[in-house]
Amino acid sequence: MKAWQYVGDGEPITLNEVPEPVAGPGEVVLDVKAAGVCHTDVGHVDGVISYLLHAAEGEARTMGHEIAGIVREVGEGVTDRRVGDRVVVRAAPEGPGTERDGGFAPLVSVQQELLVPLPDGVPWDQAAVATDGGMTSYHAVGARAEASPGLKLGLIGYGGLGSLGVQTALGRGAVVYVAEVREDRFPEILAAGVTDVATSVDAFADVGLDAIVDFAGFGTTTAQAIKTVRGGGRVVLVGLGAQFATIDSSDLVMRQIELVGSMGGDNEDVAQVLQLMLDGKLVADTAPVTFDKLGDAVDRLRDGTNVGRAVILFD
Amino acid sequence: MKAWQYVGDGEPITLNEVPEPVAGPGEVVLDVKAAGVCHTDVGHVDGVISYLLHAAEGEARTMGHEIAGIVREVGEGVTDRRVGDRVVVRAAPEGPGTERDGGFAPLVSVQQELLVPLPDGVPWDQAAVATDGGMTSYHAVGARAEASPGLKLGLIGYGGLGSLGVQTALGRGAVVYVAEVREDRFPEILAAGVTDVATSVDAFADVGLDAIVDFAGFGTTTAQAIKTVRGGGRVVLVGLGAQFATIDSSDLVMRQIELVGSMGGDNEDVAQVLQLMLDGKLVADTAPVTFDKLGDAVDRLRDGTNVGRAVILFD
Repeated sequence: MKAWQYVGDGEPITLNEVPEPVAGPGEVVLDVKAAGVCHTDVGHVDGVISYLLHAAEGEARTMGHEIAGIVREVGEGVTDRRVGDRVVVRAAPEGPGTERDGGFAPLVSVQQELLVPLPDGVPWDQAAVATDGGMTSYHAVGARAEASPGLKLGLIGYGGLGSLGVQTALGRGAVVYVAEVREDRFPEILAAGVTDVATSVDAFADVGLDAIVDFAGFGTTTAQAIKTVRGGGRVVLVGLGAQFATIDSSDLVMRQIELVGSMGGDNEDVAQVLQLMLDGKLVADTAPVTFDKLGDAVDRLRDGTNVGRAVILFD
Repeated sequence: MKAWQYVGDGEPITLNEVPEPVAGPGEVVLDVKAAGVCHTDVGHVDGVISYLLHAAEGEARTMGHEIAGIVREVGEGVTDRRVGDRVVVRAAPEGPGTERDGGFAPLVSVQQELLVPLPDGVPWDQAAVATDGGMTSYHAVGARAEASPGLKLGLIGYGGLGSLGVQTALGRGAVVYVAEVREDRFPEILAAGVTDVATSVDAFADVGLDAIVDFAGFGTTTAQAIKTVRGGGRVVLVGLGAQFATIDSSDLVMRQIELVGSMGGDNEDVAQVLQLMLDGKLVADTAPVTFDKLGDAVDRLRDGTNVGRAVILFD
């Protein structure tokens, strides 16, 4: 079969002929139906995020870690998946597209512990987004900030993760305030159903926000979040716009603030995202791409000329 | 009756004749048996921590917020305290010695919600320490860092709170590692039963500490704690040696660390400290002072010539 492969740091992603995978013990093989293209993929191809953590020098590796598909083959010891099941694959460092061949190919083999059932009614393109961006924003907003009905929640940064985070928070009934530096995005943000939007989160100092999720992570944004959240409140840091943050320790102590790092997520987070999608509360902005055009999609993501999240759709 | 009073920022604490208190609705009057002298008292007398947040300009106020005593009179609406009950008073911003007359006097009136029952067998001097320093260290170590059997816990700073924190952690069964810059204290720290001691917490990087409580709070100590705690671990910040801390956001996010401010505590924390004292697991180093010598005790605390925590004992 044909597969789009990483062939070296700084080398373009390359379409190669590879053997079809088989399901080893504890594994299944999927017919891939959708595979999302992620910024991390671009980072690997460009050599900004070295793949040598995962692959040996000179070793080719099929990329694609945002996968949805149908179970085609079940390996020894797999008891709770059957041929024909609709599933998604939780993005994970040990999973396909990272430590092993991924989903930029018609077939992929996957460890059973990464599989999450995909409800009928969630489209394939949406399902692919649930595995990584959806999971990450849910883990921050749903699990770590504990968005729930009536909770007053601030979100900093309305980019890819931030827009999923806003829908997640609203879908869970939270009252949402957004900080976003690009004022031209304000109409879109307000249209999403948030209560208020401003260029800086400290504009909401009088609101008494219960929690703030910082998807930007520019250090100053984290410091502002600590000052702005209510006493006893929680700041969840996701974005890494800057490596360091200088925070006011006396404010953190005297107001008993919690600052919590959040990265990735677990199968339960993925399942919750799929449920929000099924309920019509979360719709990712995707751009379908055919398998043969995957290299172009990587280029557009690098150039910033992409519109929506590129997802490879298979027949 | 005679009472030691704050009479103005920068003025010495003064022994004045004042009326005896009566128990208003929801209040009790205590025969004070012990009242601890706190660094905060010195700060108020010296004007470093202004008392004008609490008292009007020119208003005298009886100090003393670390109080243990016996119920002498019960006000209207108080149903769960009786004359003769042994109690302690949780130190609180709204309580005696801060927003109202305190315990540097033979009698004090107290809101019932600040009272915690004092078990027979805990001496009065120890009981007084439980209300503030004991509570604060318990809240950080027991409640926020969740010290429990087998938990690997790092503590930074072996001062007044730190030494109570070490006993609290050991009393709850934790495995304790201490960072303390004063190497001459190492024998005493090791004798307390800790597993290891070093001048910097990052010496324990290979231990996989589940949580670290920073009683020093010098910014650098907090940054080291975040680097040293295990992935998914918690850093509890109590001390405020410096106002700001510069932390590694990427480490906080990628290893999903929690940084949590801790200040003061609640009645349950005080009750837990009293139980540790009753069980012989926590003994504060106190120095009894007679009521007439209270002014001298404040001076010694300011000069740093005190040995042990000064506690006024009444007959």
